[in-house]
Amino acid sequence: MASSILMIIYDGIGDRPVKELDNRTPLEAAKTPNLDRMAKKGINGIMDTIAPGIIPGSDTGHLALLGYDPFKVYTGRGPFEAAGIGIEVEPGDIAFRCNFSTIEEGLITNRRAGRIKEGTKELSDSINQIDIGIDFVFQEGVEHRGVLIFKEDGLGSNVSDVDPHEEGVPYLTSKPISDNEDDTRTAEILNEFTKKSMKILSDHPVNELRVDMGERPANIVLARGSGTVPHIRSLPERTGMKCAAIAGIPLVRGVCLMAGMDIIEVDGATGGMDTDIEAIYLRAKEAMKEYDFVLVNIKGCDLSGHDGLAHEKVEFIERLDRELKILEGLEEHYIAFTGDHSTPVLVKDHSGDSLPLTIVGPQVRSDGVTSYDERSCVRGGLSRLSGQDLLNVLMDLSGHGEKFGA
Amino acid sequence: MASSILMIIYDGIGDRPVKELDNRTPLEAAKTPNLDRMAKKGINGIMDTIAPGIIPGSDTGHLALLGYDPFKVYTGRGPFEAAGIGIEVEPGDIAFRCNFSTIEEGLITNRRAGRIKEGTKELSDSINQIDIGIDFVFQEGVEHRGVLIFKEDGLGSNVSDVDPHEEGVPYLTSKPISDNEDDTRTAEILNEFTKKSMKILSDHPVNELRVDMGERPANIVLARGSGTVPHIRSLPERTGMKCAAIAGIPLVRGVCLMAGMDIIEVDGATGGMDTDIEAIYLRAKEAMKEYDFVLVNIKGCDLSGHDGLAHEKVEFIERLDRELKILEGLEEHYIAFTGDHSTPVLVKDHSGDSLPLTIVGPQVRSDGVTSYDERSCVRGGLSRLSGQDLLNVLMDLSGHGEKFGA
Repeated sequence: MASSILMIIYDGIGDRPVKELDNRTPLEAAKTPNLDRMAKKGINGIMDTIAPGIIPGSDTGHLALLGYDPFKVYTGRGPFEAAGIGIEVEPGDIAFRCNFSTIEEGLITNRRAGRIKEGTKELSDSINQIDIGIDFVFQEGVEHRGVLIFKEDGLGSNVSDVDPHEEGVPYLTSKPISDNEDDTRTAEILNEFTKKSMKILSDHPVNELRVDMGERPANIVLARGSGTVPHIRSLPERTGMKCAAIAGIPLVRGVCLMAGMDIIEVDGATGGMDTDIEAIYLRAKEAMKEYDFVLVNIKGCDLSGHDGLAHEKVEFIERLDRELKILEGLEEHYIAFTGDHSTPVLVKDHSGDSLPLTIVGPQVRSDGVTSYDERSCVRGGLSRLSGQDLLNVLMDLSGHGEKFGA
Repeated sequence: MASSILMIIYDGIGDRPVKELDNRTPLEAAKTPNLDRMAKKGINGIMDTIAPGIIPGSDTGHLALLGYDPFKVYTGRGPFEAAGIGIEVEPGDIAFRCNFSTIEEGLITNRRAGRIKEGTKELSDSINQIDIGIDFVFQEGVEHRGVLIFKEDGLGSNVSDVDPHEEGVPYLTSKPISDNEDDTRTAEILNEFTKKSMKILSDHPVNELRVDMGERPANIVLARGSGTVPHIRSLPERTGMKCAAIAGIPLVRGVCLMAGMDIIEVDGATGGMDTDIEAIYLRAKEAMKEYDFVLVNIKGCDLSGHDGLAHEKVEFIERLDRELKILEGLEEHYIAFTGDHSTPVLVKDHSGDSLPLTIVGPQVRSDGVTSYDERSCVRGGLSRLSGQDLLNVLMDLSGHGEKFGA
């Protein structure tokens, strides 16, 4: 019988040497006896999620980890954000991320409409009655967030944002980024949508109430991150595996949903520094009984990396390590420990630095590496691997691969 | 603020073990305390400029190092040679390298027309008056060298040489190498050019004078190395960086010019064994103030490799090392030390053997390698890298990279 696969993605775990940690990386500085034990039992290497030096986003990184070529299937964040908040999207749809914002005398005075919480459903209902000549769906998300989907053949996604990404300036006119007529058409429709949404929102009862209460009106929808929903073969179809994901953030959920994976909800998995690591590991372990492949994304390292907090990153890594004993009893299965990208505390953003990778399981060729970190794993038996190859390696080890040829 | 990038290409530095050097490579045998210090501070690896076992030319090798896929953009040497001697070429142009040669009674008796030095401008002027039914430019270069450019839509570059590459034989009729009509047309026009150039050169005053003085007449133009000028995005456009190159040889200059880089002239940089290494390093260091990315090509190792002179190669490497102290003070920047290909003294030509690669800079993950050479660098933190990835890795480290995705 085939074993199952657990791919644990410590979001943003990779880093660079930091002076305040005696020129060690946070992962090198952290006490990680359990991860080190995995490295000793396992086969190790370094991994470029997309390619050496290419800086992955959370979306493109997870696409690669699921075996898709992001250069072929990724055109923008919109479709994955839309899928992540539960909207049904179809290949060919054009999707945008949106904000409810506040416009006053032609200037965007608040990009988040004062982080509006109530009434967005009513605003959306009105927006969906606009006529822009094509089928579309607008769906509100958490607070000021929403997504917009154009459901029409022959539209391109290579258009610029309406969102100016700053306040105190006018909103932008979307422009095609190519000479392609499909893009021109999308930009024109989007600009019409912006104007008509503004019109319908300007005297909307929800906004009249907000103004009365001294709050910012949500009187414009600013779209950004245009992308085409890709034509991709779902993971179950491509691999024959039953697949699930545990992920706190909508963007990663969106990628997994679009890959045809089930999303497993975990109480207390917040996607923040306070996330319940124990609950996540426990739920993942349980899911291994039911699924052939489970992906787990835990976000904390990325957050402290973005904030430039080396010691906080060390502490979060030590928490990730401490709870690992929960995964005991999975010795018949294959578990990979890696990340989707580095988020070095000195960079305060994603970087293209390679990631440590350890695979444990009953039949791996262990390699003498004794520590799970960026520099120790280099000397492992996997050498340097591409993220797009990882799932194939795991499927092969666990008996889910299929012979190519005869 | 982003750091700058210096890519130092020691042309042909890679080698194989040589018996007369106690089975060490020239780089292993050379005393290189400064390069070894870089290896200790830096992150190391081996690099396949194009792909493992693929033998790079100077043109294809540098294209890869600048991040272009030579299999996609390279069709022949002509376009790069043309750009390297300062001719304006446009995407789609077909370019050939040419020699003024001597033909007597139907046989090529001297491929270099006795290394003609004077009068080539006058010969070119006459050649440019030939009518071959399309726009073209012929431009003389140094001594017997020149280039020919066909400026016409719908021409292919996949045609065989007119130059027989040996003496005592007739010149060749160019033939299409495919069934493509575009190639057939190019071959026909080139053959007509050859005949008409021969006619106009046969009784040219410059040649009558040469014959009177007992010198070889330059009475035929032999074309070779047909290639299409590629449609490529320039490096500044692709990367947003201000880019410059220091390179002694026209072919490498041509590649860099076509990539939109500025060429920096260095007095005493001859491209030969006598080149002024100190002046090159000094000028490169100065250029780092003005440019985001500087590529330096130093040719010496390749020359002694072609000549099969192991000890001469060792000595040149030691000179390269000795002057390296000039680069002190660039600690905030990222410097890569590598080559464009190996030129093993036992092969006396380029080879596909991988190259040593060391990257130093403020945030690299140093890796315990203590010597800069082919076999020590294997154990480094970069593992095995492709030349096409190197610039991405350097851009990521130095803060010039852009996130792909969100």
